[in-house]
Amino acid sequence: MMQERKISMAVVRRLPRYYRYLGDLLDEGVTKISSRELSDKMKVTASQIRQDLNNFGGFGQQGYGYNVEFLYDEIAKILGLSRRYKMILIGAGNLGQALANYTPFTKRGFDLIGIFDVNPKLIKLSIRGIEVFDMDHLEAFMKSNEVDIAIITVPKIGAQEIADNLSAWGIKGIWNFSPTDLLCKDNVLVENVNLSQSLMTLAYQIHSTHTN
Amino acid sequence: MMQERKISMAVVRRLPRYYRYLGDLLDEGVTKISSRELSDKMKVTASQIRQDLNNFGGFGQQGYGYNVEFLYDEIAKILGLSRRYKMILIGAGNLGQALANYTPFTKRGFDLIGIFDVNPKLIKLSIRGIEVFDMDHLEAFMKSNEVDIAIITVPKIGAQEIADNLSAWGIKGIWNFSPTDLLCKDNVLVENVNLSQSLMTLAYQIHSTHTN
Repeated sequence: MMQERKISMAVVRRLPRYYRYLGDLLDEGVTKISSRELSDKMKVTASQIRQDLNNFGGFGQQGYGYNVEFLYDEIAKILGLSRRYKMILIGAGNLGQALANYTPFTKRGFDLIGIFDVNPKLIKLSIRGIEVFDMDHLEAFMKSNEVDIAIITVPKIGAQEIADNLSAWGIKGIWNFSPTDLLCKDNVLVENVNLSQSLMTLAYQIHSTHTN
Repeated sequence: MMQERKISMAVVRRLPRYYRYLGDLLDEGVTKISSRELSDKMKVTASQIRQDLNNFGGFGQQGYGYNVEFLYDEIAKILGLSRRYKMILIGAGNLGQALANYTPFTKRGFDLIGIFDVNPKLIKLSIRGIEVFDMDHLEAFMKSNEVDIAIITVPKIGAQEIADNLSAWGIKGIWNFSPTDLLCKDNVLVENVNLSQSLMTLAYQIHSTHTN
């Protein structure tokens, strides 16, 4: 059952990890698990697990533990993975192609239905059976398809304009790989994956561990 | 000047973003900026900025603001970007190739010096002038080069074994794109980029914004 209560983003960001571990357990044929066992596997405290899962009404039963399949399905519902999402990709360079070719997304409910680029060399190319179209076709495509998510892998320059257009054309969420902060209307959700920032964070940790 | 005091990871994760904005300001020829102006640009509060930058002794001068170039250079030093890092890539598939071809990393001080894969079709291929070697060559390579960072883009199965080997051969940090949690010795730093988790977080936000 969906709870009306707002869940903190910190908990939300942990849910996909629970989902992944529970999926692995299901694949291994495990049907139930205690918070302690899950805690050992996931390297988080059992109390953290109980707290996190209590946000959703608490699916555990005292002395029994969690029913793996039930919990897996409930987390899927909470994450919104019990429906499918239509995605388009803007930018068919190396990273765009890598994302387009990552098949597990389809299994999770994310269907790539369109690919767009400005590079004439890439246009008409087919990636996983999807033809790359010129950016000129984007508006018409957005108007004739209900697109949920746009993956943006274009360079910094131009990314905000594309985001503005997509917002005007009714996009719901943007998965942004462009190294800039996109400003969108409140009802357009933006998830930034800033790879340079991630690498710099690693550099900091190496630097501070190995030089002090 | 490096402070001995331990900086919280929350602050560290914000520093690359300051670094990026300050770099943009430098490119635009801006020499000084107040915390209020920086706050407007970055959409964080001026007090957050002052607090964050105070961690490093506080570079701002009352009534003058921050010297952009000085602050940029200091953050680079803190992040460990005033030195260079030698990186290898394990896994030369789509994502690996995308990362190998991302030239801004070189500008920031990260030099890719080796690429390894198990796929015979990829071996001997050259990516940005670097030949792809069979995984069999990894040990010898690690022993004859001082490698700081390994980028891992292999499937889940096999990733932990590779991480174990790299740890034994003296790697300092792992930038992990494999959809699994790698367990490493304390002095091997792991930065995980879990793309599926990021996409699921976006799905949650779309689902909870557009259906409630």
